[in-house]
Amino acid sequence: MADPSPQELLNFAEALAETSGEVLRRYFRTPVAVDAKPDASPVTIADRETETALREAIEARYPDHGILGEEFGGTRETARHVWVLDPIDGTKAFITGKPLFGTLIGLLQDGAPLLGVIDQPILNERWRGIRGDVACFNGKPVKTRAATRLADAMMYSTSPAMFEGKDAEAYGRLGDAVRYALFGTDCYAYGLLAMGCVDLVVEAQLKTHDFCPIVPIVEAAGGRMTDWQGAALGPGSDGRVLAAGSADLHAKALAALNGRN
Amino acid sequence: MADPSPQELLNFAEALAETSGEVLRRYFRTPVAVDAKPDASPVTIADRETETALREAIEARYPDHGILGEEFGGTRETARHVWVLDPIDGTKAFITGKPLFGTLIGLLQDGAPLLGVIDQPILNERWRGIRGDVACFNGKPVKTRAATRLADAMMYSTSPAMFEGKDAEAYGRLGDAVRYALFGTDCYAYGLLAMGCVDLVVEAQLKTHDFCPIVPIVEAAGGRMTDWQGAALGPGSDGRVLAAGSADLHAKALAALNGRN
Repeated sequence: MADPSPQELLNFAEALAETSGEVLRRYFRTPVAVDAKPDASPVTIADRETETALREAIEARYPDHGILGEEFGGTRETARHVWVLDPIDGTKAFITGKPLFGTLIGLLQDGAPLLGVIDQPILNERWRGIRGDVACFNGKPVKTRAATRLADAMMYSTSPAMFEGKDAEAYGRLGDAVRYALFGTDCYAYGLLAMGCVDLVVEAQLKTHDFCPIVPIVEAAGGRMTDWQGAALGPGSDGRVLAAGSADLHAKALAALNGRN
Repeated sequence: MADPSPQELLNFAEALAETSGEVLRRYFRTPVAVDAKPDASPVTIADRETETALREAIEARYPDHGILGEEFGGTRETARHVWVLDPIDGTKAFITGKPLFGTLIGLLQDGAPLLGVIDQPILNERWRGIRGDVACFNGKPVKTRAATRLADAMMYSTSPAMFEGKDAEAYGRLGDAVRYALFGTDCYAYGLLAMGCVDLVVEAQLKTHDFCPIVPIVEAAGGRMTDWQGAALGPGSDGRVLAAGSADLHAKALAALNGRN
């Protein structure tokens, strides 16, 4: 059987985002118990219930596809198509009532990010993108912008705590070079980058589900998103991510991160 | 002539927030020129046009009242009533398309914060409060929560860059003691505190217009908000601010800031 078309798969990803949004709107700003995972990061019933709903929908529609989810791990991970799910990217934002968390839904094809959705169900904001095609915000095509100099760039990261040891030194070089180095955004920052509101996003200690769904959106919008060595992102990446509004600004930011500026 | 009642004054403050919201919704996520002020902080036509509209409305309604605004300074600052205005608290959030900035509108009576409004015009979220009375979010009364131990507390600050020298050491002691030390919120964090979504907000390098409008909201919601020595906040304060969901948690956080924990 032929593969479903990318557009058909993206439509399904958006249907999944409707499902996750229904769950998350029920729990937002309600008192939910917060458990600590082995790495001390928080998880709630809202994370688990959302991922369960998404997995059930995928199993029903595409039983041969694989699934890699933040809360419940991997199933059929060697399949040609693997769905990558982060039910709540920004659980700390979610549990503190800050509506900038997002649900990330991505699809790998032969191990490479093919398409993705960032869904913010409280603000009814959604970004989507297909590799080599177009990126949209709430249904309308968007394009990145990019400062031509680092000194004019506005940059986001979720928290300075994600940069440790040599990563902190690298981040410091880049942070000193840009106009504004800002914090507190999770996946929302990549959405802002895709729609041309900011120039750079730099992060570390991310996992596959944190960045694979985002890559097709940023790149289809005209940006560039790689690891800190400039290599393509995928399930084997080391968790260091750099996204820029243009290839030129990306090269300048890479040079600063690596002390070559 | 007798003073207008606090409720009448608060109603006027909410009418001002309608005015500011109309201006800011026009400029949000549009390309506006960003100028640098002498302290390197950004300012846009949206900041200036908003403050001008608010000042005109105050001059028309209460010509004897004073005004202290971020962009255009003070007028009749020795009046019994002085309006304190921050047209965009979080200009960096505003210019990067992040909808967590806010318009702050406060009223000092005899030099002390009497009432205030935090307005988020993109999300249609508004907090209001009168000293010794009630605090509301979108018209409904709200109450703070507070963890009983610092180790359970969730805390926000706008950026680690606001803590320098000994302030960074003090912040570090408190940050190490809480469960989560998070970033990226401007005035929105105090709204989340007033509605019981977070336990602590700690900041430094704030100005009168950044905190005076917020104090009546946090305190009317059941919280406590002072400087880092526990003194009441007003126009003479040094810009260091600590807000907590309860007097007990406030005392514990003060002790940590001052190395007495």
